[in-house]
Amino acid sequence: MILLATDFGLAGPYVGQLHLVLGRLVPEVPVIDLQHDLPAFRPDLASPLLAAHLDWAQPGDVVLAVVDPGVGTDRRPLALRLDGIWLVGPDNGLFEAALRRARSIESYEIVWRPERLSASFHGRDLFAPVAARLARGDRSGLAPAEPTRFRDWPDDLPRIVQVDAYGNAWTGLRAAHLPAGSRLRAAGRTLERARTFGDVPPGTAFWYENSSGFAEIAVSGGSAAETLGLRPGDPVEIVVGDC
Amino acid sequence: MILLATDFGLAGPYVGQLHLVLGRLVPEVPVIDLQHDLPAFRPDLASPLLAAHLDWAQPGDVVLAVVDPGVGTDRRPLALRLDGIWLVGPDNGLFEAALRRARSIESYEIVWRPERLSASFHGRDLFAPVAARLARGDRSGLAPAEPTRFRDWPDDLPRIVQVDAYGNAWTGLRAAHLPAGSRLRAAGRTLERARTFGDVPPGTAFWYENSSGFAEIAVSGGSAAETLGLRPGDPVEIVVGDC
Amino acid sequence: MILLATDFGLAGPYVGQLHLVLGRLVPEVPVIDLQHDLPAFRPDLASPLLAAHLDWAQPGDVVLAVVDPGVGTDRRPLALRLDGIWLVGPDNGLFEAALRRARSIESYEIVWRPERLSASFHGRDLFAPVAARLARGDRSGLAPAEPTRFRDWPDDLPRIVQVDAYGNAWTGLRAAHLPAGSRLRAAGRTLERARTFGDVPPGTAFWYENSSGFAEIAVSGGSAAETLGLRPGDPVEIVVGDC
Repeated sequence: MILLATDFGLAGPYVGQLHLVLGRLVPEVPVIDLQHDLPAFRPDLASPLLAAHLDWAQPGDVVLAVVDPGVGTDRRPLALRLDGIWLVGPDNGLFEAALRRARSIESYEIVWRPERLSASFHGRDLFAPVAARLARGDRSGLAPAEPTRFRDWPDDLPRIVQVDAYGNAWTGLRAAHLPAGSRLRAAGRTLERARTFGDVPPGTAFWYENSSGFAEIAVSGGSAAETLGLRPGDPVEIVVGDC
Repeated sequence: MILLATDFGLAGPYVGQLHLVLGRLVPEVPVIDLQHDLPAFRPDLASPLLAAHLDWAQPGDVVLAVVDPGVGTDRRPLALRLDGIWLVGPDNGLFEAALRRARSIESYEIVWRPERLSASFHGRDLFAPVAARLARGDRSGLAPAEPTRFRDWPDDLPRIVQVDAYGNAWTGLRAAHLPAGSRLRAAGRTLERARTFGDVPPGTAFWYENSSGFAEIAVSGGSAAETLGLRPGDPVEIVVGDC
Repeated sequence: MILLATDFGLAGPYVGQLHLVLGRLVPEVPVIDLQHDLPAFRPDLASPLLAAHLDWAQPGDVVLAVVDPGVGTDRRPLALRLDGIWLVGPDNGLFEAALRRARSIESYEIVWRPERLSASFHGRDLFAPVAARLARGDRSGLAPAEPTRFRDWPDDLPRIVQVDAYGNAWTGLRAAHLPAGSRLRAAGRTLERARTFGDVPPGTAFWYENSSGFAEIAVSGGSAAETLGLRPGDPVEIVVGDC
């Protein structure tokens, strides 16, 4: 399978053109849209989200991932093979969280260039054709190279990384890594943990472990992002004990 | 076919993960996104919309439907077979309108549980695997049980049930059930019926029978929701004769 | 392949029902969503966008295109064969730019009518079944007829035609047709050309040739539509030399 995770959004022609290119090159390979609203221009926020998606990928899958504010500059295009899963995208930190969690790593720079390479849409012109080839087991056009590492980034990111359609605010913190009894402080509010929406009264703000393993700030029956005024990039504090 | 109708929205990873699970389990079964913007948290508003979608389903299809504010609580997961069409989702009224219109009904509680069941995403963890099995004709994990009925709900719902991308405000009233000469009153305005957009001057608010059979409030060349200030859940009155 | 380009939006059931109809009729034909946010009610703005999509189509493809404010009136439904590519949709100027660029043109009115034809959703009821038949090589239900031409429309449209998910404002001007050294004037600002986002400081407004060949107004790391207050339909001026 080819799995797509980008910040292209669903407005405009970008996702459609990506599917068209892949559908021409590898019509026999299923293509799944994981999400196209990764945080725009912010590989640092997208990196933990992408790593979580890999929990659902399998060896042989190709993940085409694009959050690429430096498209058209000299940032390198990468192809990584992490635990048997191919990842294709820009060398800008987007793969940092995935790299840290991988047990086996092969890494390559994409040295192939297409005849027609736009300055702003390498997803369509460069990454998609390479993803299609890798899905067929063709590794041509790759040269061994180390990815740039972002070693000062934390393993768990204490920031809002995305807001979903319900208005839930995902943090980059994995719930299983938080101390027992942790509360979260965001937008001037300190929030208790609950198990799920149905366990708190309507309108209550809380945090819980979401279905991807992240600590998520939510409001039962409402929008946490609107109620609390939260946006991607906003800081989150972990509060342990009395305060 | 597996047909998806949810309130997951198109932001975040929910729809993508649903497709991924189904694509792994039943790659040979086409999966169609009917819509993912059913009214969030409101099974009462979503119920007539879901029933209308069934006009386009066929025996053998599996409809995976999720509007599930009680996810993770003790509300039961259901599998219903209505006129040969399987419906899978929560027992919270979402299927009430469909049940009323069905000629033949088989009903089951889903008693199977997956190894990994998140507290907040039964669409991915529970309903999708069951839908996949039913699409293959495998009814394991089901126990006969009656769905909860919501007998005080009206057959036709005099409320706005959704706003589409044009800003048209769909009511839960089937146009064919309204008395001849009916006008609709909403947001303090009384609206005449027209046949379609091209039959009224630009900017005019009116109602008409939409392509799904509902009475829909529209503004020619504009957004009825913005112009009139209509939102899902708002009441609508039927006005017959002079007023 | 069947390629879809409409103004249906992603809210509501329209795109889903289109896929459902096509999936029933021609399950063996891949269907690609090029985009569903063509400018609503504005065939004049959508026309250059549709023509640009054809750069990625191939002989044998069927493009189902709908921006159809006159649906349900007496505007004619068309099937055009431009350089071997079928286009199906309303006769309202949506195909004007494509017609001008085509080397070979066959044109037909769709005279077939389905048993069930809604007043407002010919995409589902009329155009989709015809697109499915054409994808199978079946031309029944067509009668030779000339499309209405809109000869006073410019070859390159000096207006904003769409805003994408990043907030970039696409003009209807093809960059390759602009005089060397052209600047663009929009929303009271005169903008210089750059090669791509990474070549200007963050926050800078500029224009560049986008990945579809259009002159696009952008802000590095931000939203041009928000920063400059641009919306589809807004005028754009070409400035050559000192001003």
